[in-house]
Amino acid sequence: MSLLDRLTALLGPAHVLTGRDCAPYVSEWTGKYHWEPLAVLRPANRDEVAAVLRLASETGTPVVPVGGRTGLVGGTEAQGRLMLSLERMNRIREIRPEARIAIVEPGVILSRLHEAAADRGLYFPLWFGARGSAMIGGVLSTNAGGSNVLRYGSTRALCLGLEVVLADGRVLNLMSELHKDNSGYDLKDLFIGAEGTLGVITAAVMRLVPAPRAHATAMLAMPSLDAALALLNRLQAATGGLVEAFEFMPRSYQALLVARRPDLGLAFDRIYDVTILVELGATAPRDCSPGPDGTLPLAALLEETLGAMMEEGLVTDAVIAASEAQRQALWARREAAAEVGTPVSGPSVDTDICVPLDKVATFLTQAEARVAALDPGAFPHCVAHLGDGNIHFTVFPTRDDPALEGAMVRAVEDTVQDLGGSFSAEHGVGLSKRGSMARRKDPVALDLMRGLKQAFDPGNILNPGKVLP
Amino acid sequence: MSLLDRLTALLGPAHVLTGRDCAPYVSEWTGKYHWEPLAVLRPANRDEVAAVLRLASETGTPVVPVGGRTGLVGGTEAQGRLMLSLERMNRIREIRPEARIAIVEPGVILSRLHEAAADRGLYFPLWFGARGSAMIGGVLSTNAGGSNVLRYGSTRALCLGLEVVLADGRVLNLMSELHKDNSGYDLKDLFIGAEGTLGVITAAVMRLVPAPRAHATAMLAMPSLDAALALLNRLQAATGGLVEAFEFMPRSYQALLVARRPDLGLAFDRIYDVTILVELGATAPRDCSPGPDGTLPLAALLEETLGAMMEEGLVTDAVIAASEAQRQALWARREAAAEVGTPVSGPSVDTDICVPLDKVATFLTQAEARVAALDPGAFPHCVAHLGDGNIHFTVFPTRDDPALEGAMVRAVEDTVQDLGGSFSAEHGVGLSKRGSMARRKDPVALDLMRGLKQAFDPGNILNPGKVLP
Repeated sequence: MSLLDRLTALLGPAHVLTGRDCAPYVSEWTGKYHWEPLAVLRPANRDEVAAVLRLASETGTPVVPVGGRTGLVGGTEAQGRLMLSLERMNRIREIRPEARIAIVEPGVILSRLHEAAADRGLYFPLWFGARGSAMIGGVLSTNAGGSNVLRYGSTRALCLGLEVVLADGRVLNLMSELHKDNSGYDLKDLFIGAEGTLGVITAAVMRLVPAPRAHATAMLAMPSLDAALALLNRLQAATGGLVEAFEFMPRSYQALLVARRPDLGLAFDRIYDVTILVELGATAPRDCSPGPDGTLPLAALLEETLGAMMEEGLVTDAVIAASEAQRQALWARREAAAEVGTPVSGPSVDTDICVPLDKVATFLTQAEARVAALDPGAFPHCVAHLGDGNIHFTVFPTRDDPALEGAMVRAVEDTVQDLGGSFSAEHGVGLSKRGSMARRKDPVALDLMRGLKQAFDPGNILNPGKVLP
Repeated sequence: MSLLDRLTALLGPAHVLTGRDCAPYVSEWTGKYHWEPLAVLRPANRDEVAAVLRLASETGTPVVPVGGRTGLVGGTEAQGRLMLSLERMNRIREIRPEARIAIVEPGVILSRLHEAAADRGLYFPLWFGARGSAMIGGVLSTNAGGSNVLRYGSTRALCLGLEVVLADGRVLNLMSELHKDNSGYDLKDLFIGAEGTLGVITAAVMRLVPAPRAHATAMLAMPSLDAALALLNRLQAATGGLVEAFEFMPRSYQALLVARRPDLGLAFDRIYDVTILVELGATAPRDCSPGPDGTLPLAALLEETLGAMMEEGLVTDAVIAASEAQRQALWARREAAAEVGTPVSGPSVDTDICVPLDKVATFLTQAEARVAALDPGAFPHCVAHLGDGNIHFTVFPTRDDPALEGAMVRAVEDTVQDLGGSFSAEHGVGLSKRGSMARRKDPVALDLMRGLKQAFDPGNILNPGKVLP
């Protein structure tokens, strides 16, 4: 019996897609990767995943686990491979509000978990543009970040336990709900961010947090990034760490926004060099009810801080959201980033870098100069989770020239390395950044990673060729 | 040249101790383990550590890395082995208050880091009794916990970057200061909690947090653990998560305290079944300055919550610290735990377990019943980081009988396993809990851990025989 016949016997014909039926699965959202998979498999449960992996191991067939396929680095490319889609394993098995946990399957879409948590007055604090498509399995496998990392950490910080099917089909049970567990090596965190190369996540225990019941949100024009960092520090000190998001949109981003999404409008009557979107979130009752003058305590703190900084010349202009609708309108300008940052036509060099907070301005100056030296007409732009030092720095070169694009990537990497940063902050490595891994990662670390891969997946069937150069 | 001669040539005679000079290093604080090391080595820097490990690898000589030797599970036992003491690598290289990080060497004593951070208005939020002796290297290698895990997490959550010397002497550079970095597998977290079996930590980047500038601390008598959990949840909700510590001292603990440390006195005029030490910590200015009536806002919130619960019959009695001296006096009763929980003579069965928060009462009832069935005269007692579900459950059996002690450990483990808990919450595995690892850990997880050990330390020279059964 052929492999596909055996898989069909295992999963049923409706869940082994081939040929044209694979159409929705054969490219990445960015349009940078296209492929023809051997088949798309849609297992219903953990045991089917295990059976598929046993069969793949036995036959040496590569398997690419996929979720919502919203990744940006080619991590789900699957030319000639089996795609293992976890989409049918989409149950939120349990939410226990008292314990503040959700037990979920990998095919749960992020926004469904947001809704389910909200119904219980809780929040799953992982927030980014693709939340309507991204699935928990992919979110875990890429250690996804987003706009709330500043306060709540990346996905790794939000996961208490995992169930994983290994390459040979064995099931690893790490489904702990505990906040403390020192029984041996930290295996859980190895699978988080491994992009499906070490095992397939089939269930997870995720942390929930009390839902912020009041927000204070503002869009600010500021004279410099130094002023922005001063504001962040003052707000953290004034509120005791209640800053939920601190996003930077420079002139270049605003220019693209005006051109691409004129419907969203600008927050100010002109474009400034430094625009910041800041949001505070409160859960304590005393922060959630308006004072005698009708102002929320957090909004009052924000206004007070901004007022003082305006007098010092450190804030140029400010719009504070006075309603949830106004808050959404401010956020819409930030959340258009994926759309706004994609070229209408022509090439694009995308990076997702991280540097220490106080080196963001230096990074931008140096990277832009290096890019201009390579291609004076290139258009560099960015949007940044400034509170994390994480910059999505993108360049539209003037010509479609792979050598030039490669030189630009290396120029950005040089700058990052000089500043003690990372070439991959939150998007992962996939295919796109394997070259960066080879060039920039500590060689001893690479060696250990190869040893890990060999120990966990000796047949190299799990998403082979990804992450490791 | 003999191995010791070569080591002496490498480190200098003053730093290769043998025979009687090893005396301070030959036992564990608990008194449960004694050994005769081959020698105690005291390298001055990373390169000396690397040279020692190269030599150890070449000669197949086992090496036991040690710090302050305050562990409780035999992790530093070193019969016939080289002990590698990191005590001379004790520099706080840098504290950068704006970035809220400290770059430290492994021999830095925890309380020195507390002091250095406090000088800059910051706090290193890892707090436990042995802080005056424990060193950062050991704290990292055991993923130490303590009283502030509830708010700030265990050591793993406080470490941004590491430098590690591997078994073969190669240096792994993971000294990141970044809060986001998705460049390959999470190696850092593997070394944290590995008890020196995968590599020797030679430097670390640790997170600091704003120092709480006001505390509200109280000792409470409560009718039940359910009432205690209700209080924890109400305080977290009322303050927006400012509970720093939530410690449980039952009747058995208080009885020992009275007997052993009468100088400390009791908080109340009698002993209650459930005594809780709770502490709130505030950094926001509005929480740190007294209101018109002279009461701190947090203390007012605490009093209000306690008052309401007293009316509901959920709090029996309360002492709120009115000064720093009173606060210290309340804490002294909790911090005497190590002393109070050690038998004057005779055997002691110690465990360090974790269960979901709402199962602590069930655990205690069941574990005590099982222990009583084995030895009706045994004295079970405990002290607990209740906010984490972490219980230091100890039994003084009536007779010195290894078979009985083993049966008691297994009885406690049975209870823990039934409740979805862990047999090791914060003390680690070392030698003492290798049997528990063999009996209780997922066999697939054990297999992967053995694979990791083989990949990282193929010659099995790093603290061999620890952690893995």
